[in-house]
Amino acid sequence: MSKLLVVGTVAFDAIETPFGKTDKILGGAATYIGLSASHFGVDSGIVSVVGGDFPEDYLHMLNAKNINTDGVEVIKEGKTFFWSGKYHNDMNTRDTLATELNVLEHFKPVVPENYKDSEIVMLGNLHPLVQSSVLDQMSVKPKLAVLDTMNFWMDIALNDLLDVIKRVDVITINDEEARQLSGEYSLVNAAKKIHKMGPKYVVIKKGEHGALLFDDGKMFYAPALPLAEVFDPTGAGDTFAGGFAGYLAKTEDLSFENLKNAVIYGSNLASFCVEKFGTERMQELTADEVKERLEQFKELTQFNIT
Amino acid sequence: MSKLLVVGTVAFDAIETPFGKTDKILGGAATYIGLSASHFGVDSGIVSVVGGDFPEDYLHMLNAKNINTDGVEVIKEGKTFFWSGKYHNDMNTRDTLATELNVLEHFKPVVPENYKDSEIVMLGNLHPLVQSSVLDQMSVKPKLAVLDTMNFWMDIALNDLLDVIKRVDVITINDEEARQLSGEYSLVNAAKKIHKMGPKYVVIKKGEHGALLFDDGKMFYAPALPLAEVFDPTGAGDTFAGGFAGYLAKTEDLSFENLKNAVIYGSNLASFCVEKFGTERMQELTADEVKERLEQFKELTQFNIT
Repeated sequence: MSKLLVVGTVAFDAIETPFGKTDKILGGAATYIGLSASHFGVDSGIVSVVGGDFPEDYLHMLNAKNINTDGVEVIKEGKTFFWSGKYHNDMNTRDTLATELNVLEHFKPVVPENYKDSEIVMLGNLHPLVQSSVLDQMSVKPKLAVLDTMNFWMDIALNDLLDVIKRVDVITINDEEARQLSGEYSLVNAAKKIHKMGPKYVVIKKGEHGALLFDDGKMFYAPALPLAEVFDPTGAGDTFAGGFAGYLAKTEDLSFENLKNAVIYGSNLASFCVEKFGTERMQELTADEVKERLEQFKELTQFNIT
Repeated sequence: MSKLLVVGTVAFDAIETPFGKTDKILGGAATYIGLSASHFGVDSGIVSVVGGDFPEDYLHMLNAKNINTDGVEVIKEGKTFFWSGKYHNDMNTRDTLATELNVLEHFKPVVPENYKDSEIVMLGNLHPLVQSSVLDQMSVKPKLAVLDTMNFWMDIALNDLLDVIKRVDVITINDEEARQLSGEYSLVNAAKKIHKMGPKYVVIKKGEHGALLFDDGKMFYAPALPLAEVFDPTGAGDTFAGGFAGYLAKTEDLSFENLKNAVIYGSNLASFCVEKFGTERMQELTADEVKERLEQFKELTQFNIT
């Protein structure tokens, strides 16, 4: 069992979907990643920052799931990062209604001593300099560094982003972002170009259309589970990444064959995340449910042509 | 080995893509379906109509692939159906530049005596009354009737379409059409509603995102093979349907497990179709290439979680 270090936002979200709307609820990339990875029973630690307005109960909830929050700095006089968005009817597009950086604006991540030797590091979506700073603090080179990012950083901090991409083993990125980063429309060609930027493995997330895993010359496809209703897509990509990293931390096998399993588990966990608002479904999720859904993924994808 | 009857257009297409453009070349749903099904060595017959301008060489090419064209009426004084379209850069959307119905306008399909007992009938995209007329002429109820259609018929002949949908076992339809026909955005819910309209199996084609097969309560997903370059998507959906029907005609096993294999073969053959303009790639395709690509589909989708 490897130790997993997660850096990313711990935040408040206010979400509106065709099914309803929420007040400020628990959100943030690191929250979703941590909750997802916790299903593999790994020892994980989060590096993040919150304000004095952040309820301690949320941290206790994470701790109860074996997620260490010693690396979550609390700035008493500051306010927690807040994001608000509204999803359109197709659930694939959304408008951002508000983004208040607050304590995130001057965030200097500090990796707790006990997590500086984590074998797996999951760099959640944040400024690439923050992601680099976490790698700089590791006392031992991680066996696997995974980076998630978004188009925003390509627009405003491309060189910093390229610097940190060079240092990681896996990048997870959505299809439009892969196209923007590579300048290639075909995802096969996009993955090839991104591979040359550094990462051995490229994972392209296609939302409801699943995710593609690329090695140099090899490909694997994990579908999203087709659902009757997607209630709230917020956090699905982070939940996918958390499941991916958590499974690898548990199994300690970094072969392409096992990375296939990791993306299947990522899809598995993400399929739960979207069933309720925010982190609600992930908080109550049981091991039996994950196991049962794995069988559904097998039925959905496995065939036997002789 | 079952006999396969195919009804659909045999036509001229003129195609423009970001990679180039063609003059009038061989096209039509029945052409693509027939060429695709021919890879399974089945005895198939096409019911269609062409004008005096249609080169006999095209018919001979089909005959050489064991595709019977006795049911292709030649109207000497008429002109062959012509479609012209231009694909946008994303290859997922296109503009129709011209549609000349010509001999198709008053098409009355006549099923040759020798194909009235075909065990499998593939109703390619055509007016639903033409599709119904083919079913009416069968001397023995087919073991499997498969229907393909498009949004155009939903707009102008919905009741006729619903009548023929009631009579078939499988419908193949793209995602947007499934949403239009059912009034449901979620494809899971759309399939449920379409299932209630008659067909035991619903196949929803998602283009580059693959295809979903629904039984009542069961689901299977066949991805499209991610390609570095899609040269011309024309005929991919028909090629998919032809591979699906051809495989079932060959194997004569209509269980859900074998229908899974049929959609994999549909995706397999469609992945070749898009590699060159029109039917070019399908005409030269070898059995070894199909077999090799099946291995690629297995690598792409099969995993082993213990």
